[in-house]
This record gives sequence, structure tokens and C-alpha cells, in this order.
Amino acid sequence: MSDLRIAVVGAGLMGADHVIRIGTRIVGAHVSAVVEPDESRAQAALTNAPHATWFPNIESAIEAQAMDAVLIATPGQFHEPVLLPALAARLPILCEKPLTPDAESSLRIVNAEVAGGAQLIQVGFMRRFDQGYMDLRVLIASGESGELLGLHCAHRNPAVPDTYHNDMLIFDSVVHEIDVVRFLTDSPIASVEVKHMKRNSLSPAGLNEPILVLLETESGVLATVEMNVSVQFGYQVKTEAVFQKGIAEIGRSAGMNRFFDGKISTDEHMSFKTRFAAAYDAQIQRWVNAVQQGTIDGPSAWDGYLAAAAVEAGVQALRTGDKVPVAIEARPEFYGR
Amino acid sequence: MSDLRIAVVGAGLMGADHVIRIGTRIVGAHVSAVVEPDESRAQAALTNAPHATWFPNIESAIEAQAMDAVLIATPGQFHEPVLLPALAARLPILCEKPLTPDAESSLRIVNAEVAGGAQLIQVGFMRRFDQGYMDLRVLIASGESGELLGLHCAHRNPAVPDTYHNDMLIFDSVVHEIDVVRFLTDSPIASVEVKHMKRNSLSPAGLNEPILVLLETESGVLATVEMNVSVQFGYQVKTEAVFQKGIAEIGRSAGMNRFFDGKISTDEHMSFKTRFAAAYDAQIQRWVNAVQQGTIDGPSAWDGYLAAAAVEAGVQALRTGDKVPVAIEARPEFYGR
Amino acid sequence: MSDLRIAVVGAGLMGADHVIRIGTRIVGAHVSAVVEPDESRAQAALTNAPHATWFPNIESAIEAQAMDAVLIATPGQFHEPVLLPALAARLPILCEKPLTPDAESSLRIVNAEVAGGAQLIQVGFMRRFDQGYMDLRVLIASGESGELLGLHCAHRNPAVPDTYHNDMLIFDSVVHEIDVVRFLTDSPIASVEVKHMKRNSLSPAGLNEPILVLLETESGVLATVEMNVSVQFGYQVKTEAVFQKGIAEIGRSAGMNRFFDGKISTDEHMSFKTRFAAAYDAQIQRWVNAVQQGTIDGPSAWDGYLAAAAVEAGVQALRTGDKVPVAIEARPEFYGR
Amino acid sequence: MSDLRIAVVGAGLMGADHVIRIGTRIVGAHVSAVVEPDESRAQAALTNAPHATWFPNIESAIEAQAMDAVLIATPGQFHEPVLLPALAARLPILCEKPLTPDAESSLRIVNAEVAGGAQLIQVGFMRRFDQGYMDLRVLIASGESGELLGLHCAHRNPAVPDTYHNDMLIFDSVVHEIDVVRFLTDSPIASVEVKHMKRNSLSPAGLNEPILVLLETESGVLATVEMNVSVQFGYQVKTEAVFQKGIAEIGRSAGMNRFFDGKISTDEHMSFKTRFAAAYDAQIQRWVNAVQQGTIDGPSAWDGYLAAAAVEAGVQALRTGDKVPVAIEARPEFYGR
Repeated sequence: MSDLRIAVVGAGLMGADHVIRIGTRIVGAHVSAVVEPDESRAQAALTNAPHATWFPNIESAIEAQAMDAVLIATPGQFHEPVLLPALAARLPILCEKPLTPDAESSLRIVNAEVAGGAQLIQVGFMRRFDQGYMDLRVLIASGESGELLGLHCAHRNPAVPDTYHNDMLIFDSVVHEIDVVRFLTDSPIASVEVKHMKRNSLSPAGLNEPILVLLETESGVLATVEMNVSVQFGYQVKTEAVFQKGIAEIGRSAGMNRFFDGKISTDEHMSFKTRFAAAYDAQIQRWVNAVQQGTIDGPSAWDGYLAAAAVEAGVQALRTGDKVPVAIEARPEFYGR
Repeated sequence: MSDLRIAVVGAGLMGADHVIRIGTRIVGAHVSAVVEPDESRAQAALTNAPHATWFPNIESAIEAQAMDAVLIATPGQFHEPVLLPALAARLPILCEKPLTPDAESSLRIVNAEVAGGAQLIQVGFMRRFDQGYMDLRVLIASGESGELLGLHCAHRNPAVPDTYHNDMLIFDSVVHEIDVVRFLTDSPIASVEVKHMKRNSLSPAGLNEPILVLLETESGVLATVEMNVSVQFGYQVKTEAVFQKGIAEIGRSAGMNRFFDGKISTDEHMSFKTRFAAAYDAQIQRWVNAVQQGTIDGPSAWDGYLAAAAVEAGVQALRTGDKVPVAIEARPEFYGR
Repeated sequence: MSDLRIAVVGAGLMGADHVIRIGTRIVGAHVSAVVEPDESRAQAALTNAPHATWFPNIESAIEAQAMDAVLIATPGQFHEPVLLPALAARLPILCEKPLTPDAESSLRIVNAEVAGGAQLIQVGFMRRFDQGYMDLRVLIASGESGELLGLHCAHRNPAVPDTYHNDMLIFDSVVHEIDVVRFLTDSPIASVEVKHMKRNSLSPAGLNEPILVLLETESGVLATVEMNVSVQFGYQVKTEAVFQKGIAEIGRSAGMNRFFDGKISTDEHMSFKTRFAAAYDAQIQRWVNAVQQGTIDGPSAWDGYLAAAAVEAGVQALRTGDKVPVAIEARPEFYGR
Repeated sequence: MSDLRIAVVGAGLMGADHVIRIGTRIVGAHVSAVVEPDESRAQAALTNAPHATWFPNIESAIEAQAMDAVLIATPGQFHEPVLLPALAARLPILCEKPLTPDAESSLRIVNAEVAGGAQLIQVGFMRRFDQGYMDLRVLIASGESGELLGLHCAHRNPAVPDTYHNDMLIFDSVVHEIDVVRFLTDSPIASVEVKHMKRNSLSPAGLNEPILVLLETESGVLATVEMNVSVQFGYQVKTEAVFQKGIAEIGRSAGMNRFFDGKISTDEHMSFKTRFAAAYDAQIQRWVNAVQQGTIDGPSAWDGYLAAAAVEAGVQALRTGDKVPVAIEARPEFYGR
């Protein structure tokens, strides 16, 4: 089987990172095209992709038949104009989250994919490839601990840039828990509510956080999410699952234990780049393998749409203080059950 | 200094336990009277209190000048008729929680104590004497971790008897967190709200739990409490404190690590009796020492009243689903700031 | 039952500490006499023992019938001249470790006690009252993990004074493991061998440590002891027990977990005073209770003799580099099996 | 740069595993030849290597110029007849440990490599690629914790087949610690001594273990190794490093914490295949990358020789009970300092 030729769309931080990842850690694929309007950015990325060509836009890359598959790594608001032509060209797509910034546009993508008759889009919710979440999902599905009753999630960043604003708490950060809660429970988010913890005066001006987000699934599971982006100490993502018969917890820091200065300590991560490095790699490797088989192996466009709908409700909940129901369309049979 | 002579009022489970505790682990005190209408219960307790006399009611014990101080261990609804004569007799009192079952009666006790001009009542919120809570309070007060922004509490029991009903989730169990949140934050509870997790089908019929209780303090700290009384696996009480600069956590299980059968494991407690054994002892020893100095060394009648007010709001929140504000009277100067 | 009147012999650091302990944390006993040649030291101790009288030597205290029992807290070389008259007076004795500094003198004490016909001496190996060692002993005796095959012990101090010398590594420090290995295995130490780790240049001049001590029991269990008195970071005492079917470990630090500065940490003890505070209290309380019943409840003079014999072998092993067998007399029936 | 063509020599368990690893997880290389006298074994391996050809022996593969590099995965006694012709053909080699079974033959390999003038051999001590050992080595080299004084290693298997015999404790198992102690300390093993713990009656007949191995480096670091191959509970490899100022520990189990049945537990590994999966992958990826640069990136033939010399001493120590010095030749300048 020959290598999968991937066009990486967007050569910003995330795109450049994926170019390096594909070149050095992914088997069976290489970057054949970098699609990026900014030429200097593109050239920088090309230094890590010796077999790749630069294209200023997706259409020219498609025209040149420069790739077998597309990895979209631009900001969310630019996804739709790439997704639609790539779908039209019947190219498999790995699209960084979010699928699109709102439920309506996400639904357009879903409809376009359904119309095409083949499932081509995988969304980059890479936490589904983290060992902890995978283990927890298996435990839930096994039923050996009884029913899952609730989840306590914490999502903590040491700091964010001044450009980070309130809505991003939901659409940029909590969106991961929104997908993961569904992944773990196999049930869509039915409502979202937001509470404020005492504001951290170390947060950027105008940012009112940490917040506590309450997600309720259709199946009745209540999930709490502490979303905290100025906690200084480290990057920590963990989940405690409450079952009928006990508790399971993922995301504790591992690594070397140090016994110095009257303390026993373990290092915590300082960035998602190290915390989820293995998950990012696994996501792309499994996608490459699946594409070679003509399928996807991860969250679908429908998952992307469901997340977009919950994010919309979440942003409204953040702004109003209300408990906001999540309105979703009926699931097309196309996406299975 | 001569031993403090204590009358234990109520010789049920809790009272009998305190009689043994005072006899075997508390220095500087002994049980001089057992006040209990049921004679056979009283006689059983007396076997562990060789120097004690039986009295059928508090009035006769006071009349006989049988004690220097009173420990009340009857159910909450019987506290007021013991508290008032003991206050009138100017006896120091350690009163098991709750002070009384509702805010109105608690306020009557407060007023009676204030009228007497001396602080005689200590309420049995024994968690304030647990090393973990004490350490955490010191950390918060030190300011070295920045401001406290929120608390995540979990209070888990393996099981409860069939007589345990919904309101008890608040007035019997969450009442501990209600006091501890104030103890930690030095700020009264301003509102209470209750959410339901998915119901545990292993709970007694009619009991709808676990629940998630949201407590907000006047100072703006948001505390979540998972109250869970059918979790099977063990008795676990823990708190995670979210600061500006990091997190502190108390209540993790300690003890021997076992490496068997593919697992590394530590035993968890199965009952509050072992989890808080040291706290119960410390509470009484420090009260005895304080009484010898003519003072108290623990939560006051005012603390008991504040808890009663928050419990009332909590029960209403549980029943209505609303966020219920906690109405409290102005604090008498008598209780300091 | 009336309070046990205890004479504390020696009012140095350890003795003064025991005077405070008995006065504030031990039920059913009080200090009735302080036996100490140095009057100013004695007077300092007496401020914490309101009912006690000063005696310059044990003979005068015995003559005055000033006590029901004796707690010996002088340095080891002064134990014999207190033990013999106290035995002659048929007084129950709690003797700080070591019983005496060498096997020959310990055997004299044993013989004197046997001749008296009653077991009066308990030796202050307080680790036997530490919850971890007690739990581990129960696990070993239960057989549920299979046979015990070996032990890995670490005994670490942050620092020692310049007066601490090489032999003290064995007779002052490893002596605790010497007793505990016997307590855990119920088998005497058969041989001792000492290896040197790389010398810590932060140790006091002339002190060559850390060392690794190999203890073999008659039953074939091999125990390693890392004895380390300049490790700076904290006071840590732990044991890993190797069974046929797995491992058990005691002595891990518990307490609050802190998440700050990129680390998750727990405080370690800095002194035996906090690490073993509960064990010291439990030792004396259980001794007091036992004395009231006319018995002892802890390590006997025979245990003290066995430790002295192993210490002698250990010091020789340290000096020669050889594996030194431990020579012990036949066990008198007097001490049970 | 084109893919590195690798000949895998030996298609037993280990070789077959490497064929799959290279095909699915290693970037920049593929298996071009399977060298294996047993044709049916070879054919089984070829199903996972679509671009590979079968050769019955190394000479025919070299003759056919079927590879750019050689990975030797046969048992140790068959390494020399593959190493010598591969060296003669100037092919880069990754040779599974041990380099050869004894110091004399290892030295022949070293001499042959030196004579060729280029460093072509890397030895498969894959623990050097485990994150824990890498972190610990960095900590030691940094000097921030003071000098390294000693190491406590535990190497525990749940069980071994009946064919496993006493000498294998050293040459098959402790050999990993023998290399790792050098890797961590940058100092050769100077002597080896072996002590027996109580024999585990669950071990295969004739096998006398667990054992305690004492390794001393030339620099004076004392390392203890508990080598235990019948511990039932799991596969555990850990190291505690004793520094002047504290302790560091690697190898604790991570993964999901489960809170069930009165216990808080974490799963331990049951095999080296999961415990060291990442290390095996990293070893080969880094070797492939290095070979592309004309170098090696891991333990050299000289490291293999040093391990063989220490293993020989270890086997003798096991058989005699003596402390056996490790005799090594002077280090050729060829291998750097």
C-alpha cells in the first residue's frame, strides 16, 4: 500500500505542528501539500515537509490532485469554505475542532456529507484517543461498576493570552468536555448551565473565570466542569466518574516522584502539548489507517454538529445565567445509531 | 486542677460512644452522670463509666449538681429542652450537631445564651478538628496560594438504612459541608441550590440521590458538594480547594499500599467512625481543656444557627429546584467578629 | 480504679517529653515523681507535672514509695542501675530502648527479672505501636499473601548533630529495624552484615554513611535497611514487604496534596516526633492499661536482650565488613514462646 | 531521504514483534528482509512485512544487498555469527541484548568493530529509552540533588516458565539493571554479590529466588536489585535513587484510579510488553533516525561488553556466594570517553 498523501490546510501553530507530526511520527503517510494563503508561513512549514508543494488555496490543490486526504488546521471560522470543496472532491478529511463555529453551519456540513453518500469527515476531538478516556469509556460500557451517575471534570490551564475572552471558555475550551461527556456516556448533551466561581484576579482583564459548567445528558447523567484558565500551577485535565458502586478517576499526574525539601512531589504538565501528545499522534495514525481502508476512525461530522449545538447553548448559558436546553435535529440514519 | 465532671445526655449510639471515649481517651475529665429516660440504656452506658450516676432527665441532674459540664448526644429535636435548663444553670455545653433542627429554634438558643452573658455552647461540628480541614484552613488564611475561588467537596457513604429520606441528605449529611465551607472561608453561606445526578437504583426506595449541592458564600466562593449515600465502595470525605495559583486537596486515603492481583491498592474507610475517630477525640479533649479555662474552643451556638439557616434553605432548594437565598439575622457582637 | 503514679527517670529531652505526654494525653496515669540528679532539669520538668516530687536518684524515690511504676528515659548506659533496684522493688517498668547497651548486661537484666518471677519490664520499641507496622504484622500473620520472603526498609533522617558517630548508626538507629524485623517475622535475627553506599559529603566529619544493613532471620527472611542520617529532605521511615504473591508497603507520606508551581506534592515529616507521635502515645497508654491489669503490653526484656545481641553483631559487622552471626542464649520459658 | 531497508534476523517471538513494530509504528524504515533458517516461521513474519524477502541466512541477504541495516533478534548464543559478517559488510546493526553471552566473545565483537573504524553496533538495552530512566539520568547529571549515593531497584515478574533456571536470573533479567546502573551513574560495575531472600515455594522447581543482587560501581555507588520472577501480582520495574539531599523514584504504576470494594486501586502491568512498549518503539525510531545520519543513538558494543563482563561476575557470585570483582579491559579510545 502506498503512503497516504495529506494536504495540511493552514500553516499556523497547529498546522505547523501537524506537519512535523506527520513527518516524524506517523507511519504510512506524508505531507504532500501545504495549503496556506500566507506564503512565508507556508515556506516555513515546507522545510519540515520535503515532498510537499505549496498551494495558496484548497481549490488549486484539488485541481492539481496534490493529495489523497485533507487535514484542516485553520481557525474554525475558515473551516466551511475548505470542507465543502473537499467534500465535493470526495476527499477524506480530518478537521480540527470545531467542525464550524455554530450549529447552523455545522448542520450544512452534515447535510453536504450525507448528500455525498459517504462518510468522509472526522473531527479532531483528540481526547477520544487519550488512554485515560478510552479506559474510562470501556469501564462505563462494561457495566461492571453499575450505572454511571455523574462526572466531575476539571480543565485547568496555567494562563491564557489577553486575547482570550469569555465566550472562548465555552467554544474553545469546554467544547472538549462537551464532546468527551458524549463520548463517555453515548448520550447527547440535553442542557447547559454556567455558574461563576470567585473571579481570579490574575485572569486577563474582562475575563470572568473560573466557571463551573453543568452539563446534563439525555440519559440523565450530570457532569460538572471546572473551567479554569489562570490557575498558574499547571495544565491539568482530569475526570472523576461516579458510578453506582464506586468511583473511577483519570488524569492524575504520573512521572518521577521526587523527595526533596520536606516534600514528595510529581511534576504536572504545563501545556496540552505534552499532556495530549500521545493522543494527537494516535488520532492521526488511526485516521491514516482508516482512510487507507476507506473509512474514518473517530468523531464524525455529526459529533461535530452536536458539539456545536451544545457550545451555542453553553455560550447563551454563560451570558444569561439560565439553564439552556440544547436543540438538536433528528440524527440521520447515515451516521448509524 | 481536678477532673471535669461531664454529664452525657442521651445514651443511644452516639452517647454511648462518647461515654467510652471520655473514659478511655480523654485526659482531665470523666463521666459523672448519664442523663437518659430509658433506664436499661442508661445502665448499659454506666458499665463504661464507673463514677457516674443515672438521671432520668436534665433537671434532676442539675438539681443534684452532678456535673460541671454537659455533652448533649440526643437526636436534634430533643436538644432545645436540654440546652435551655443547662444554660440557665450556667453549665458549659458540647451539643452534637445540629444545634436544633431549624433556624428559628436555633435563634432562640442564641438569644438565651447572649442574654446569659457568657459563651457556654459549643456545637459538635467535629470536622473542624480533622487534620485535613485544619491544614486547609491554615493554607487559605495564609494567602500564600492566592485567594480561594471555589471548593469541590465529595461526601460518600457506602449505604444508608431504609429510614434515611431525602431531606436527611441536607440536614443530616450536607450540614457538615455547610459548616465546613464557612469554617474554611470565614464567610456565611449566601445561597443554596440542588441538582440531581442520575438516581442510583441501589438507593433505598423513595431516595433520589446522589445530588450535587451548590453553596455560594457571601464572599463569592462557589462550593460544589457531591452528596452520595449509596456508593457502596466506602466512606469517603474529601475536598479540593481551587486557589488563584493552584489546588489543594484533602481527604485522600492513606494507609498501607498493597500490591496484589495486578493492582496497587490502599484501603478506604467504610464508616465515619474510623475516618473521623481522631477528630472526635480531639474535639472533646480541646473542649475539656477550654472548659477548664472557662471558654469554648470550637464552633459556637452562632455557628449552629448559621448552619440551621443554610440547612433550611437547602431543604427548600432540594424540594423546589430553585436557588434559595439564606436569610440570617445580624450577628450579635457577643460572638465577636 | 485510681490513677497509676509514674516516676519518670531522667528529665532530658526524652524524659521531659514523656512528662508532658503523660500529663496531657495519657488517661489513667499521672507523673508522681521526677528522678533526676540535675536539680534544675528536674525543676523544669516539674512545671509540667503538678503532682510530682523531685528525687535525685531511684533509691530515694523507692524508699519514699513515690510511684506505682517507673518510666526510664535516661541514656542507655544508665539503665542498669535503675532497672535493678526497680526490679527489686517489684515495680512495673517501661524502659526506653535500648534495654542496656550490650548483650551481656541485657542478659543480666533478663536473669534478674526471671529470678523475680514476674514480668515487669517493657522496652520502648514504640514502632510496634505504629499503625503501619501493626497492619503489616497482621497481614503477614494472616498468610493471605503467602509467605513473607524479604523486607526492604529505609530509615532516613534529615541531619544529625556532629556528636553522632558511626556505631550510633547501629545501636541508636538501626536498632529500631532490628526489633521491628523480629516483630514482623516472629523470628530472631540470625546474622548482620553492613555495606557502604557512597559516602554523603554532607554528613558530619568522620561519619561514613549512608549504609545498607542486611539482616537475616532464623526463618530465612532477608531484610535490607538503608540507614541514612543526612538525607536533608525529611524524616522518612518505610518498609516494603515482599511476599510470595505480592508486595505491601507502609510509611508513605499522607496529608494534604498541594498542586502548585507545576508540581503535585505532599509534605513529608521532618522529625520522628511528628512521624511517631501517635505511636509514642499509644505505647504509654497501652502500658498504663496493662500495668493496671498487672501485666505488660509490648516488647519484653527478652526482646530488649535479643536487640542488644543483634546490635552487638551489627556494630562488629560495621567495623569488620564481615557477615556476623548473632549469638543468643536459649529463651527462658518464663517469656512464653 | 528514502526509507531505511531493515533486515530482521530471527523470526521468533521477539523478531516477529519487531517486524510488526517497524511496519506499523516506525517512520522512515521498512522491513526488506527476514533472515531465518526456519521457512515456516519466516513466512509467518513476512505476512506483516509486504515488501520483504526471505533469506535463510545472513550471508545470502548480504550477497543480495537486501538491506541497509540489520536488526538481530535471535537468542544471544547466535549473535556472533551474524554480527561478524554484518560488520564486515559495514552494515549498521541493532543487536538485541546480550551482545554475546560472555565477556570474551563480546570483546571479539568490540575488537572487530574497532578494526573496522566505524561504530556500527547498537545494543538493545531498551530501558535507556524509557521516560523514567531518562528523567532520572537527567536529574543525576544535573547535580541539583547532590551526588548520587545509591540505588534500590526492584525487577518483578508475575511468573516464569519451568525452563527458566537460576543463571537466567542474572544473564536474562538482572542484565537490564546491570546496564541501567551504568547508564545512570556513568561508571562501570566494579563488583557483584548475590544474597538469597527466602525462597518462593511458588517458583519453578530448582529455581532459588527471589535474590538480592548488590552492584558496586567504580564511582562507589551501591545498587541493590531485588530480582523476583514469581511474585504473582504483576510486572513491576522500579528504581529509587538516593541522593545527598533526597530521593527520586521512577516506575510507579500510573493509569486510572478505581475506587471500589473498600479500596482505591491502580492497575499494574502484567508484562514487559506493555510496561516498556513505548521504550521499544523509541529505541528503534531513534536508531533508524541515527542510522540515516550515519551514527548510532544508544548503547554501544562497548556497553554490551561491559554488561557481559558484569553478567559473568554475577553468575559466579550467584554460584559461590562471594563478592566477585568485574574484570574489564581498558576502554578503546574509539568509543569516546
